[in-house]
This record gives sequence, C-alpha cells and structure tokens, in this order.
Amino acid sequence: MIFSSALIETAVNEFARMPGIGKKTALRLVLHLLKQEPAQVQQFSEAIARMRQQIRFCKLCHNVSDEEICSICASHSRNKTLVCVVENIRDVMAIENTQQYNGVYHVLGGIISPIDGIGPDQLNIHSLVERVQQQEISEVIMALSPTIEGDTTIYYLSKKLQGVPGNPVKITTIARGIAFGGELEYADEMTLARSITNRLPLENYMQK
Amino acid sequence: MIFSSALIETAVNEFARMPGIGKKTALRLVLHLLKQEPAQVQQFSEAIARMRQQIRFCKLCHNVSDEEICSICASHSRNKTLVCVVENIRDVMAIENTQQYNGVYHVLGGIISPIDGIGPDQLNIHSLVERVQQQEISEVIMALSPTIEGDTTIYYLSKKLQGVPGNPVKITTIARGIAFGGELEYADEMTLARSITNRLPLENYMQK
Ligand SMILES: [Zn+2]
Ligand SMILES: [Zn+2]
Repeated sequence: MIFSSALIETAVNEFARMPGIGKKTALRLVLHLLKQEPAQVQQFSEAIARMRQQIRFCKLCHNVSDEEICSICASHSRNKTLVCVVENIRDVMAIENTQQYNGVYHVLGGIISPIDGIGPDQLNIHSLVERVQQQEISEVIMALSPTIEGDTTIYYLSKKLQGVPGNPVKITTIARGIAFGGELEYADEMTLARSITNRLPLENYMQK
Repeated sequence: MIFSSALIETAVNEFARMPGIGKKTALRLVLHLLKQEPAQVQQFSEAIARMRQQIRFCKLCHNVSDEEICSICASHSRNKTLVCVVENIRDVMAIENTQQYNGVYHVLGGIISPIDGIGPDQLNIHSLVERVQQQEISEVIMALSPTIEGDTTIYYLSKKLQGVPGNPVKITTIARGIAFGGELEYADEMTLARSITNRLPLENYMQK
C-alpha cells in the first residue's frame, strides 16, 4: 500500500496490528476518523489510552476493575459464598450478560494447556485456594469451556480444593448445555444461563 | 452488554462507533489492547490523535498531506500537465498502488449526487477549473466510478472545463475495464492500471 501521508500510514499500521484487522479495514477506519471532528477523535484516542493506563485487576477475583476491588466483589447484593471460576474476563462478561448469576467470580487468567506451555503456576490458582481457605465459601462452580484443557483444569483445581483442610467445599460444574469442544464465550445467553442454573456436582461430571 | 469497568465500557463504545465494528468486535479489540504493553497502546492512541490533529489537505489537489503541498504534487518526477480527477483520497491510493500513473491528481471530495443532496458547490470543482486556467495542463483524466453519479459528474466537469478560454484541454475517461456500477476502489490493481493506460477521449465515452 502506497501512502502519500506518513501520518495516515502510521495510523493504518497501528490499526492493522490488531487481530482481524487487515490493511484495507485499517485504512477504512482511519479514513472514517479523518472525517470526524478532531475533538471526537481525541476522545476516542484518550478513551483507549486511559483504559490501558488506569485499568486494574481486582485483588480478590482478578477481574478487570476501575478500583482495587471490582464492582462485582464490592457489591452488597452478591452472594460471596458462591464463587464461579472462569478462564478470562470475557467469560465474566458472558455470564454477567445472562443476568442469572448472583455469586462472585474467580478469573484464572487462562487454562492449563501443556501444548501452549501454560501450567498451574501461570494461573491465579493459589489465590483461589486461599479464598477457599480463608473465606466462607460454600460452593465453587467450574465454568470452564468443555474442552480437554478445561477438563484438565477442572480436575487439577478440584484436587487442590478438596485438599483444603476443614469443611470440604462443594464443587460443581456448569451443565453440559454447551457442546463439548465449544467455546464458552460464544454460547448464547439462554444456553449459558441454563447451564449455570443446572450446574452439576463434580461427581456427576466426572462420570459422564 | 454488562461491563464491570467504566474504563472498558467507554473504550468499547468508542470503538463501536466506527463503521463495521459491532459491540462484540469492539470488545475483542479492547481486550486485545488490554493485553498489550501500556507503552504500545499509548503509541496506538497517539498515532490516531496525531493523525487527525496534524493532517492537512494539499492546497493544489486536496489530497491528504503532511505538508501544505502533498508529496505527489511536490514530486519533481511527476508529470504536472496530466491531472487525474478522483472522487476521494481512497481512489488516489488505489491508483497509486497500481504504480502505473505518473501524473498528478485532483480530489473532488465527493461526486454530484442529487439524491444525497451533493451538488457541484460542495465539491472541489472551482479549484479544478482554476488549475486548468492557470497551469499548463494538457490532459484531464476523469477517473470516477462508472455509475450514474459518476457520469453526471463527468458531464458537468467536461462542460465546465471545455468552457475555459484558450487552448481546450483534452479530457479523457478511464477505460471501461471496470464494470458499470462497480466501485473504483474495489477494482483489482491490474484492471485499474489497464483502465488508466487505455483511457479514452471523452467523445468515445459519451458515444458508448
Ligand atoms: Zn473482584
Ligand atoms: Zn497535492
């Protein structure tokens, strides 16, 4: 692509670094911004910079947050004894969008995947064990994608959590409304909501 | 969509204002940026702001430019007597990408379209007539999309340019390599290059 402006070329290249954005799409977006008022483009640019600079991760659940503790963990109307374990913040959003879940979360920040070189140490597992040890938690819901890696992670976590001394925590998994191998975040809200409502004790899941 | 962070919500909404970017795609882009180093996101944000603040439009041809005169008009190796009239800067880029054209441009900034309420006064037509009056221009190539609006604009411009006193300028149109009704910017480079090489005198075009 030949540009007669370095300003535009740089902006196009920056857009084209993003996943799913090719050079042609990047150019289209840049030319769109060129037609906007400067103040509006400034607002766009600042929203992005501010987001990255100021974003924090909740000290309790590792969800994205504007404060030290995220709005979900800070809410008085949420059931703190119910913890839903998810792979990433997208899954938190997917479950929140169902408006059916009233507990809190624990974001692992990934899933155990030997192929990708992701082991338990890279994930927020230690802090989950601590939460179960230190807080009054009655149930941990494993809301991981039904894949080999998801199952491996559920198995690893359940061993860890069942090893916590004291009252054993109840471990459930989201119901198999989602097809095996499917990505959790692409499930429609109804299926996802139902799979949480119909969650199973871990024993049932392992017998499948 | 339910967000637990206003920072993320704002950034997603800003992305989702852009054409072809829905809320889901916007979220994906924002979450991608969240994984990048802050310095890299800062660079992205600044490239966009700088582009919009500092971009100029060439005093001669109305192409986007980093300076008062664009790099094409300023180049000593371009043939200044050959002016290619295009609708917008995307078309300049499309023709530049063919690497087959060595003249200069004139960007109309649109096309005559009564349906969209765009008349000759909203376009850079006066400055084109002035260029033909004041500079030594041997040929004006009409490189407009072969649509009703394109034809209307070609007709209007040719009347205006033929009315310039003195030596009548030669007016050509790009060859019909591009299907009637097709958008110029989507033509492949080969077709576009050939349609310029095989350009026709206006008479041939009007007889079609
Ligand atoms: Zn939290
Ligand atoms: Zn120029």
